Amino acid sequence: MVYIGIDLGGMSIKAGIVDKQGKILIKDKVPTKADRHYSEIILDMATLIKKLLNDSHITIDDVLGIGIGSPGTPDSKSGVLVFSNNLHFYNVPIREELKRYYDVPIYLENDANVAALAESEFGASKNVENSVMITLGTGIGGGIIINNRIYGGFNSAASELGHMIIVHDGILCSCGQKGCFEKYASASALISQTIEGAKKNPTSLINEIVNHDYSKINAKTVFNAKEAGDETAKNIITTFIGYLSSGIINIVDILFPEYIVIGGGLGNEGENLIAPLRKIVSETAYSSHGLRETTILPAKMGNDAGIIGAAMLVKQQ
Amino acid sequence: MVYIGIDLGGMSIKAGIVDKQGKILIKDKVPTKADRHYSEIILDMATLIKKLLNDSHITIDDVLGIGIGSPGTPDSKSGVLVFSNNLHFYNVPIREELKRYYDVPIYLENDANVAALAESEFGASKNVENSVMITLGTGIGGGIIINNRIYGGFNSAASELGHMIIVHDGILCSCGQKGCFEKYASASALISQTIEGAKKNPTSLINEIVNHDYSKINAKTVFNAKEAGDETAKNIITTFIGYLSSGIINIVDILFPEYIVIGGGLGNEGENLIAPLRKIVSETAYSSHGLRETTILPAKMGNDAGIIGAAMLVKQQ
Repeated sequence: MVYIGIDLGGMSIKAGIVDKQGKILIKDKVPTKADRHYSEIILDMATLIKKLLNDSHITIDDVLGIGIGSPGTPDSKSGVLVFSNNLHFYNVPIREELKRYYDVPIYLENDANVAALAESEFGASKNVENSVMITLGTGIGGGIIINNRIYGGFNSAASELGHMIIVHDGILCSCGQKGCFEKYASASALISQTIEGAKKNPTSLINEIVNHDYSKINAKTVFNAKEAGDETAKNIITTFIGYLSSGIINIVDILFPEYIVIGGGLGNEGENLIAPLRKIVSETAYSSHGLRETTILPAKMGNDAGIIGAAMLVKQQ
Repeated sequence: MVYIGIDLGGMSIKAGIVDKQGKILIKDKVPTKADRHYSEIILDMATLIKKLLNDSHITIDDVLGIGIGSPGTPDSKSGVLVFSNNLHFYNVPIREELKRYYDVPIYLENDANVAALAESEFGASKNVENSVMITLGTGIGGGIIINNRIYGGFNSAASELGHMIIVHDGILCSCGQKGCFEKYASASALISQTIEGAKKNPTSLINEIVNHDYSKINAKTVFNAKEAGDETAKNIITTFIGYLSSGIINIVDILFPEYIVIGGGLGNEGENLIAPLRKIVSETAYSSHGLRETTILPAKMGNDAGIIGAAMLVKQQ
């Protein structure tokens, strides 16, 4: 028996057939073309599943269920995607619509929760019961695993870690709050901080690296400049890791998970980012005083986390 | 069959015999005299239990277990109070020591968690599965209830809500972190903010109310001054509720509990405090956009929460 996992993104729909050990037997993807009516997108999803089943000679009778990870705010109880900015979805009954094609159990969850579940089942946090994953990308996503299961709260909409306030009355976020974690510690925030630092310090190597074209600055630029000995870059990274540590300390003080797993684009910086972060959190977090400490480590599951985690939604039921 | 609940505080040891419906059948207290060796304090605890049993004609055979709520950082798994500033306890094996007198199941938990459990079992949050209680006193305590049980995290030391950082690089806290929630939104913080406001505004009514003796300012002073129409008091409260809302918004965005229950001394301000707080959180919190909302309401259990919640530690097993 196998599971089907679907990673529904703003750019592409990725799907795979996954076994109980988390191994992807076959996978494929199609473009989302998010500006279409949802019924067309879900039809493409069903067609993609059909192709996977055909290509692998697996029948739907061997499929225990379908799990879907989506951006935005899905309601996992009703299977409705309440809201997604990326997909322009508003109260879309994904489960009901996909059931028209495949009458198997269908589960829907937020993509950050799905990635956390993949890490918890097979990745960095597989040996512990309680873990939190944060993904540092354009924004900051978060998934909370309690007793080996996704914690969704009232609305299966909990763990919006990117929107915790770490700077009271700080920078305005698109969500309407001020001082959100992701305005200070996401990859986008680091890029803004790098541009600002480069402008203020015309002799910084950062300017040279991008030929004074700030649109070329990405999240790696400042790490490369630091590697080459640039003082401005070093200061930008120190400040950035300070912000990041405030959010991580809050997760430790509130949830005290065994592990915190760092994923997303910035997670790829690995120990460059995580070693100094670990030091600050260990020295500072209230809950670490004289006790066991939360372990901070990079994500392991890579690009397939979305498919595998979504498939595990079925296993988790 | 009944439970025994013990509310171990820096000033007094309160104990009660509690039935399954959360009714206290008998209760009593003795002074803690916290500067003694722990074995003497625990002997007093045992003697107090003996007195309750004698006075109520209940035998130890009718007692299903003893629950203890303590300040500081207890390790609920081992029954050891790892650290308590108030009691000057460091790695005290409370369970083992009390077992010498009463060989029944004994459970130990942080007092804020115990209060949250009391509210969840019989108080403000009794109808929901997931709730968070915060107590606004000298500091800010927190208890997280998930699926009707205390969530303790890695170390049964989670839910240190008072030490979440809401002002990155803000006021130094005694815990070593900067910008902790309790430095801005506890009763003590409100008193500091009231003194500062009164000093800056010599014509404010606050000065008159306390006869210019700032040591007389307590958490109620500014509410009284506002009631009488004082503009400075109004501004102080608005700023204070702003800070409070940042911490509450973080709890909503991270945990999205059905209910948040506000207790502690400041909780007694009731709707004066909670109505404007509710408005800000409802309008601002990311997770409330277009969805069900977390309900914020005052605690109900009053002074007996410690005894009743501690007794419920036994029921919860």
